[in-house]
Amino acid sequence: MLTRRTPISIAEAQARIAKVPLTTKTELVPVEEANHRILAAPARAAYDYPHFRRSGVDGYAICAADDGAFPKTLTVVGEVAAGDTWGKPLTAGQTVRIMTGAAVPAAATTVIMIEKTRSNPTAGTVEIMAGEKHSNITEVGTDFKQGEVVLEKDQEINPGGIAALIAFGIREVEVYQRPRIAIMATGSELLASDQPIAAGKIYNSNGPMLKRLVEETGGEVDYLGQFPDEPAQLKQVLAEAIASHEIVITDGGVSVGDYDFIGDAARKADQLLFNKVKQRPGSVTTAFVQDDTLVLALSGNPGACFVGYYLYVEPLIRRYQHQQSRIKTVSGILAAPYTKTNGFDRVLRCTYQFSDGQFKIYPNGTDRSGSLANLQTTTCFCVIPHSTSPIQVGAEVVTWLLPFK
Amino acid sequence: MLTRRTPISIAEAQARIAKVPLTTKTELVPVEEANHRILAAPARAAYDYPHFRRSGVDGYAICAADDGAFPKTLTVVGEVAAGDTWGKPLTAGQTVRIMTGAAVPAAATTVIMIEKTRSNPTAGTVEIMAGEKHSNITEVGTDFKQGEVVLEKDQEINPGGIAALIAFGIREVEVYQRPRIAIMATGSELLASDQPIAAGKIYNSNGPMLKRLVEETGGEVDYLGQFPDEPAQLKQVLAEAIASHEIVITDGGVSVGDYDFIGDAARKADQLLFNKVKQRPGSVTTAFVQDDTLVLALSGNPGACFVGYYLYVEPLIRRYQHQQSRIKTVSGILAAPYTKTNGFDRVLRCTYQFSDGQFKIYPNGTDRSGSLANLQTTTCFCVIPHSTSPIQVGAEVVTWLLPFK
Repeated sequence: MLTRRTPISIAEAQARIAKVPLTTKTELVPVEEANHRILAAPARAAYDYPHFRRSGVDGYAICAADDGAFPKTLTVVGEVAAGDTWGKPLTAGQTVRIMTGAAVPAAATTVIMIEKTRSNPTAGTVEIMAGEKHSNITEVGTDFKQGEVVLEKDQEINPGGIAALIAFGIREVEVYQRPRIAIMATGSELLASDQPIAAGKIYNSNGPMLKRLVEETGGEVDYLGQFPDEPAQLKQVLAEAIASHEIVITDGGVSVGDYDFIGDAARKADQLLFNKVKQRPGSVTTAFVQDDTLVLALSGNPGACFVGYYLYVEPLIRRYQHQQSRIKTVSGILAAPYTKTNGFDRVLRCTYQFSDGQFKIYPNGTDRSGSLANLQTTTCFCVIPHSTSPIQVGAEVVTWLLPFK
Repeated sequence: MLTRRTPISIAEAQARIAKVPLTTKTELVPVEEANHRILAAPARAAYDYPHFRRSGVDGYAICAADDGAFPKTLTVVGEVAAGDTWGKPLTAGQTVRIMTGAAVPAAATTVIMIEKTRSNPTAGTVEIMAGEKHSNITEVGTDFKQGEVVLEKDQEINPGGIAALIAFGIREVEVYQRPRIAIMATGSELLASDQPIAAGKIYNSNGPMLKRLVEETGGEVDYLGQFPDEPAQLKQVLAEAIASHEIVITDGGVSVGDYDFIGDAARKADQLLFNKVKQRPGSVTTAFVQDDTLVLALSGNPGACFVGYYLYVEPLIRRYQHQQSRIKTVSGILAAPYTKTNGFDRVLRCTYQFSDGQFKIYPNGTDRSGSLANLQTTTCFCVIPHSTSPIQVGAEVVTWLLPFK
């Protein structure tokens, strides 16, 4: 069935997705598994840190009564290695040999650096030559008090953050659940990558690409593979995907043609967001909401699929995690010719060089929608506005820098 | 045993590691598992692409004999959907309905867009109203010829690259083996993160941090955990780690103290690279080669461990994969006060803002070697040169921007 579609601008299409309210849930995960997860609540120190009086130097711990009138000789009554504690008394005239990082005896008020001492092992004594300006003791809670915030809410935990969480005794953190995202490609011409190539067939290459893009954006992928153009099966697979995922990405089946499977689902949906965008490639990109699941229907053309992912899916996955899109919008200068004209804005696959304070933008080979070979090396998109005359080299162009490059 | 150590500059320490010859091996991996691996050989198209004559439009395929003198009426002898082929003859006066992306019959020379036709299903005919400037057929090998390079050597494969590899029929790629990297922390005060906290003990937080940093740099981690200061056991663990890894990272045990386990191994090593660097934190950082394995001994202090990883380990792991370090050296402007002076260059944990064409550098809280809480939010290091007078706000500082932030 052919239906009239009303094209909207890229910005309007993005805005319509951005306005859909999302329900984000949180979960507790062990710190060890929390790398790159997003904190849904501040992580608070489980105890004062340090949680024992820690020696900052290698030396001799002494009591307040002995802290003056140097030089003087004290009796060495023992040793505290790192990891050990001193359970016995320490009184005036006595000292304990102590290592950096070890727990200082309760009665000690200063640790004298070893450089200021002379040991007499035979006599079991040490001569303290001079005193210290500072105690050389890090008191309990100097760095952090129990309950103080170690990492703030809405931060993405990184390896340095994991170190802090572990050090401060935090075992589990509350993070946003990753949205469950089903990926399904449609088209009777599609083969799985482990099938032999055959006449008239092509490999489903968008599916595996989308899988990795979604993973890298923080989504939990449910990769469904590819399905032939059989309306009844497609309808069922889509319905099942909608029932158990926050987002469904479909690829292919959006053209106005004989097998307009997505168009049909979109027309009947709870809320049709858009089914035509004033953009090339990917003008047929469609988005709708069904049973609180967002369905993003990308074009089966590789270039259009790639562009559509970054324009519409990446910001949505980030939003599920209370994050901004990591696509950075900058103003670029078109540094090489692009002579085609377009009735719709063209999102051109490019590379960029930043020099002299400018992002210089270079079209990355072909702009054909079906092209694949430049996806690997594309580092940004620039927007060539719709026009009847070609854009000039040196023109200012809206540029989107891609993450993970 | 106390030994005199000769401190060298950071640049000299990095240069000594960079001069150690590395043996890199390659392996074949399935494309599906090759995301972020580095190609050790160009990936070449397995067949011409497209590998069949593909229709670029939805329309009717006609023979050369019929390609002119429009309008004319042709007999529709069948249909080729995407994924199908046409095994029957096609002669003058006949046409086949064909979908975008489908295989064009061998005898056809042009596909007329459906918009230029009028179908008469009852009569089994179609009226072709006008001709085409172009054939609308993508001939075999238009995009790629068999054997042409799809992705170049030494590139890191990304999701877009995976799509290209799959599309061009490439099942396996030759990539560099990831270096096997053992990580061991030493110190009787260290607890594993799943042990209960105890007096005098601290959690081994550097180990889990290093594990994730190494993983993100492309190393294959063998995480050994933490070991008490027992010389015989440490010696054995280190020897075993050296025997089966390209790199061993140790953490702790580098201070000139009673349990100078690394110092001892370094002195006896095949090649001592350095055992003292003119830097704070981490002046005790040590590196040596034993049985062709590089041992990098980082300080147990969290800040020093973090700095040491980026200065000395990250570039080495990248080099095993024929990659440059992803730490970007820029010139920054110190934008907030830092008043301490140092006898050695200080590598200061900072954040940066890029504005007005300048990297503005802000010290990120404390510079204490033992501090942990700022590792999460540190995005760069700047170098405060050794001096007896404090650096001025506005001074130009060598700045290293960290990757994965």
